Amino acid sequence: MRAEHFASNEDTIVALATAQGVGAIAVIRLSGKEAFQICNQVFKSKDLTKQPSHTLHFGTIRDEDKIIDEVVVSLFIAPNSFTKENVVEISCHGSNYIVRQIIQLLVKKGARLAKPGEFTKRAFIHGQFDLAQAEAVADLIAADSEAAHHAALNQMRGGFSNEIKKLREELIHFASMIELELDFSEEDVEFASRDDLKQLVNNLLQVITALIKSFNLGNVIKNGVPTVIAGKPNAGKSTLLNALLNEEKAIVSDIPGTTRDFIEDEINIEGISFRFIDTAGLRETKDKIEAIGVERTHEKMKQASLIIYMFDLSNTDPMEIGKEINQLENLGIPFIAVGNKIDKATATMLEKAKDFNLTLLSALNKENLETLKAKIIEAVNLDTFKTGDTIVTNLRHYESLLQTQNALNDVITGIDNSITNDFLALDIRQALHHLGEITGEITTDDLLGNIFSKFCIGK
Amino acid sequence: MRAEHFASNEDTIVALATAQGVGAIAVIRLSGKEAFQICNQVFKSKDLTKQPSHTLHFGTIRDEDKIIDEVVVSLFIAPNSFTKENVVEISCHGSNYIVRQIIQLLVKKGARLAKPGEFTKRAFIHGQFDLAQAEAVADLIAADSEAAHHAALNQMRGGFSNEIKKLREELIHFASMIELELDFSEEDVEFASRDDLKQLVNNLLQVITALIKSFNLGNVIKNGVPTVIAGKPNAGKSTLLNALLNEEKAIVSDIPGTTRDFIEDEINIEGISFRFIDTAGLRETKDKIEAIGVERTHEKMKQASLIIYMFDLSNTDPMEIGKEINQLENLGIPFIAVGNKIDKATATMLEKAKDFNLTLLSALNKENLETLKAKIIEAVNLDTFKTGDTIVTNLRHYESLLQTQNALNDVITGIDNSITNDFLALDIRQALHHLGEITGEITTDDLLGNIFSKFCIGK
Repeated sequence: MRAEHFASNEDTIVALATAQGVGAIAVIRLSGKEAFQICNQVFKSKDLTKQPSHTLHFGTIRDEDKIIDEVVVSLFIAPNSFTKENVVEISCHGSNYIVRQIIQLLVKKGARLAKPGEFTKRAFIHGQFDLAQAEAVADLIAADSEAAHHAALNQMRGGFSNEIKKLREELIHFASMIELELDFSEEDVEFASRDDLKQLVNNLLQVITALIKSFNLGNVIKNGVPTVIAGKPNAGKSTLLNALLNEEKAIVSDIPGTTRDFIEDEINIEGISFRFIDTAGLRETKDKIEAIGVERTHEKMKQASLIIYMFDLSNTDPMEIGKEINQLENLGIPFIAVGNKIDKATATMLEKAKDFNLTLLSALNKENLETLKAKIIEAVNLDTFKTGDTIVTNLRHYESLLQTQNALNDVITGIDNSITNDFLALDIRQALHHLGEITGEITTDDLLGNIFSKFCIGK
Repeated sequence: MRAEHFASNEDTIVALATAQGVGAIAVIRLSGKEAFQICNQVFKSKDLTKQPSHTLHFGTIRDEDKIIDEVVVSLFIAPNSFTKENVVEISCHGSNYIVRQIIQLLVKKGARLAKPGEFTKRAFIHGQFDLAQAEAVADLIAADSEAAHHAALNQMRGGFSNEIKKLREELIHFASMIELELDFSEEDVEFASRDDLKQLVNNLLQVITALIKSFNLGNVIKNGVPTVIAGKPNAGKSTLLNALLNEEKAIVSDIPGTTRDFIEDEINIEGISFRFIDTAGLRETKDKIEAIGVERTHEKMKQASLIIYMFDLSNTDPMEIGKEINQLENLGIPFIAVGNKIDKATATMLEKAKDFNLTLLSALNKENLETLKAKIIEAVNLDTFKTGDTIVTNLRHYESLLQTQNALNDVITGIDNSITNDFLALDIRQALHHLGEITGEITTDDLLGNIFSKFCIGK
């Protein structure tokens, strides 16, 4: 259905495909029925329409007699291209002026400026890949950690789509049995026992619930683990952040309360991105975490997936440590309690710290940072990531899965309440609809517009 | 000589060839004997060493079993490539993470990170083009106006080099005659009359002097025409700059002296780039330009190639205008005298202004700006540019031409003073040496290092 619906618009689009800015070369991409004819009008060396696919040709781009650049063009004849249309890629010198001139010239000769994501949208429409795979292209480009890259590449290569398709096929099988019974409704036959059907839906629900659960991790993989460094004033929070970042992004001083703003930065530990959120010192609090006066810090702590809570071992009452750790436990967020300034702490204090199971280090001297990093990795549960199971990273997919789950729960309730087959069939169709939205079997222009408008131009 | 001297170093280099940053695709370039073998180790789909030149191949880049990306590789078999070496261009998804991973992988497999300009340097060493052409590659990438682009492209395509080579050949012919006479020196023959020789050198000098002269224009084309907008406080200097830029880059207010800093911006008029330099109002001066207290403005005016001097016609003593124009003329820099605020000026004032040949406009209402633009273009002598004559844009070439000129002048002096042939030959060799430096017939490692280190990596 989708190809017929969208592919009528076969004009030829053009855009810069490489990053903006000055480089040795830049690549301008043309896609559409007339891509070769349009390029032929400005490319002087040979007739591009007579060359085989997947070949490279050196020549000049000319506006009438004026030479704009010496270029190499790559030819991809439909359907053997990214968009499955005729595609020409022009590799020119990487100057903004030249890129602008060439694109203007191609527009003059009949091409149209591509909209954001329009190349990928065409690839989807022509069946190069499904919607979840198309979305993964953008994720892949944005990925900046091994885990995010791994998840996006797996999704682009169809791992996630296959899982969804398998679920959908099982559900279609189930629906067909119910609808078969509907055809014979007056004879009151039952092609599958209700218990078997319930078992099948429960199996589906289990897989879908696992996928839904994986979104927590998927989100963290895609956007980084939000990590708060908290603790009393002057506990060494900024120093620790700097030590981890290994560069001076936060202002460090001896004056309590130096850090005014929330400075966000990311570090990569074993392929996972951690977004470190530095917080203003927990000034007002003397003995209770619940009493934190610095409201925003408290807010940040609640939003965090991980808290690194620091104690200044050179200047903390050992009695305090137990209390504060207790209160941290009550927050219900994974935390790592750190004993900082071990170089200035007394031997008695260090002994006490061990009793509280603190991670001992000196942020200033960058001592024992590796131990802390190991604990950080341990604190984020990466089992799912490591087993290679499919992980949901996309909010849209997550929402469709939730809706599928709701519909399937309705099916179970329906079976339990012995509702009629036509209502059962309706609930199943609902579940199929939401699963189909993920891979794009079910789409609307709005949905597509919304998805591809978030892409960059040229993709 | 040069190929033997440099080409021994045949290792394979790798670098990102497109601009840094996120785009749909990025291109990584490999060049060297082992380019195909190195890429083959990580590219899965087919054996690249068995594919023809100028072909494109889809496949995956893998680090052992781990897929890094789906890519398209372009193959160029030596000598049919930019560097005349084996070249592979890997077109991958435009993510910094992926680019980093692929380059690291290629380095692990035996490639070396390219130094700035190393691809172009190899192209030069292998005789793809001469040194002046290689330098034009960098100019072409940096060009952001039609004139700069035109000059760089012409130079890259060998226009300038051919001119230099012609001169050099004539000079070599001259040298050979002198040296032939040296061989027969005991017989006191004269193969060419000294008058004819002097005529030849004078012809050469004429061409070289014209090239040297063209550098003024060439410099302006490459870097933009430095243009100062000057005038009394509140004459409308910032408003004019804004009107020309058509955007609010300078702070405009009614308070005299609002503009504190020199704001530089460029506009393009008929393909020429003008660097507009806004200046603090000429506050202290009441009647004498020489007495400008605003020292920096005075400095800027002296450095400018063009001064746009503004009068506030709503608030200027007509007696002043004549005086100030007189003083402008004494500066010896091309200037355009502008009568601003024509909407607020009296009819008498407008009459007066015409007597002084002022360009009348309203910067605020953007009235008559086209007339001003036409005068700006007229003020810069673009004849050389328009006739299509060769223009020197490179400081290094300019300096070599000056040294050639000196040597040729010595030849003339030598002929006039009837110095012996061996001294004459020495001066001619000196001229040949400096001409050869331009196109790279004469080079040193230092010179090449100096030239190519200014390139970006990947070029």
